[in-house]
Amino acid sequence: MKDSDISMTTRVQDSFRKQTAMHLIKAQLISVRHGETEIQIPHWEGIEQQHGFVHGGVVGMIADTAAGYAAMTLVDSESTVLTVEYKLNLIAPASGEKLIARGSVVRAGRRLIVTKAEVFAVQDGKEGLCALMQQTIMVVQDKAEK
Amino acid sequence: MKDSDISMTTRVQDSFRKQTAMHLIKAQLISVRHGETEIQIPHWEGIEQQHGFVHGGVVGMIADTAAGYAAMTLVDSESTVLTVEYKLNLIAPASGEKLIARGSVVRAGRRLIVTKAEVFAVQDGKEGLCALMQQTIMVVQDKAEK
Amino acid sequence: MKDSDISMTTRVQDSFRKQTAMHLIKAQLISVRHGETEIQIPHWEGIEQQHGFVHGGVVGMIADTAAGYAAMTLVDSESTVLTVEYKLNLIAPASGEKLIARGSVVRAGRRLIVTKAEVFAVQDGKEGLCALMQQTIMVVQDKAEK
Amino acid sequence: MKDSDISMTTRVQDSFRKQTAMHLIKAQLISVRHGETEIQIPHWEGIEQQHGFVHGGVVGMIADTAAGYAAMTLVDSESTVLTVEYKLNLIAPASGEKLIARGSVVRAGRRLIVTKAEVFAVQDGKEGLCALMQQTIMVVQDKAEK
Repeated sequence: MKDSDISMTTRVQDSFRKQTAMHLIKAQLISVRHGETEIQIPHWEGIEQQHGFVHGGVVGMIADTAAGYAAMTLVDSESTVLTVEYKLNLIAPASGEKLIARGSVVRAGRRLIVTKAEVFAVQDGKEGLCALMQQTIMVVQDKAEK
Repeated sequence: MKDSDISMTTRVQDSFRKQTAMHLIKAQLISVRHGETEIQIPHWEGIEQQHGFVHGGVVGMIADTAAGYAAMTLVDSESTVLTVEYKLNLIAPASGEKLIARGSVVRAGRRLIVTKAEVFAVQDGKEGLCALMQQTIMVVQDKAEK
Repeated sequence: MKDSDISMTTRVQDSFRKQTAMHLIKAQLISVRHGETEIQIPHWEGIEQQHGFVHGGVVGMIADTAAGYAAMTLVDSESTVLTVEYKLNLIAPASGEKLIARGSVVRAGRRLIVTKAEVFAVQDGKEGLCALMQQTIMVVQDKAEK
Repeated sequence: MKDSDISMTTRVQDSFRKQTAMHLIKAQLISVRHGETEIQIPHWEGIEQQHGFVHGGVVGMIADTAAGYAAMTLVDSESTVLTVEYKLNLIAPASGEKLIARGSVVRAGRRLIVTKAEVFAVQDGKEGLCALMQQTIMVVQDKAEK
């Protein structure tokens, strides 16, 4: 790992730690690589919808966050990223023991970054695709984080 | 109010109550009308992202839920609704005291319902649009709720 | 009408005239106002899909163009606009005599503009909603048009 | 090739031939495989926007069509497919000699099929990604084609 990669990883991890909403749903940032991140969340009662599956909005939260941080790995340390928009298809019920969201960069421009995320539900150790997201991210000069 | 409207309102409220994810983020279902619902959420620390705004994923959660329940008001009592997909533009930072998500039905088909939602951030009592969503909902035979 | 409005209208009309793809499908720019445009297209054989309706891609073309030019009415004469992305729901078959696409601006930022478009199919003189679009537009320094 | 594959290929090709809008823009259906299709279009003057690139709406047309027919390869001969909605990111200007749209199925349900398409601009024989699409398709009982 190069110094710049270590610094990039640290910046993303620090930023994730400041997202109290990620703590609230018990999401964890599992890995951060150049143009890619992975977020996991256990299936627990607090994040369910009325049928006992994980709420589609929670699926969207971890997809949005995983892909957004994938974009952040590609911007310089003076800049940060904001979600412009995303589109999420919920493909299968989010059942099982945990969810894994994998975000990656499709194309990085100077001002806009196009990303995608796949969310997998893990049941008996086997991953099944439960959601697919396509997202647009804007690069902005960094604002002071809280 | 007709009996059928009362029953429809009750079904939507019962379903919302079973969504533990809505409790987790402190969301409240404020109103349920034919083809329309409103969800509110106070701005509290547990749902923030790294800059102290409400997390975009939480904005998506209440938009998705408000529009989905707007669709549910139009289906018969033997059926329920599932989110097929949604697309959300985050238009302004979700700052202020609370958020209001207003969902409404654009076009109700027999199998699919197209909806939209607007999310407003309320600052000093004044509403500002912070997100816009377009959504596709599927009508399905009701599964047992938990 | 102010001078600046006349000049804005002229710029949009000139740009539309250079879009050979709009001529190809026989689309016409009917009106240009601050933050709003309207495009119409007759239903003719050359733009159909296999069931004899207007092709969904053609519906998307006029929705994209109407909303993009709605955004262009709000940028200064040194700048132009590019479509970043759009999401289109095809709500009803595009049948009837002609289609009308109405584009409008939802929120204009300095760098990004969020727009929407509705497309109506006109049958026996009566308008019916056949498509709904939500779009993100980028403001860029003008490139030489052809 | 099995008989059923030959019949599926023929059905898709026959349907494509009836789309006059595809002829209008000079699009060609290059390949049809189980869950995948490819459409190509030469870059010619009739499909340009004001800067001389291929119009984003035309890019959307071939993406929508390629992914829709990818879905059609998976439905039985009594059924056909309709586009419910799609979301398209225009990633780079559609310049070069021709465009290639590759559609594929992400997940096929009984009633809904989720697909994606990538569109490449070919310049000096080299492919560059110019658009990415995510789409929802509905399976319906076949209507008489024209």
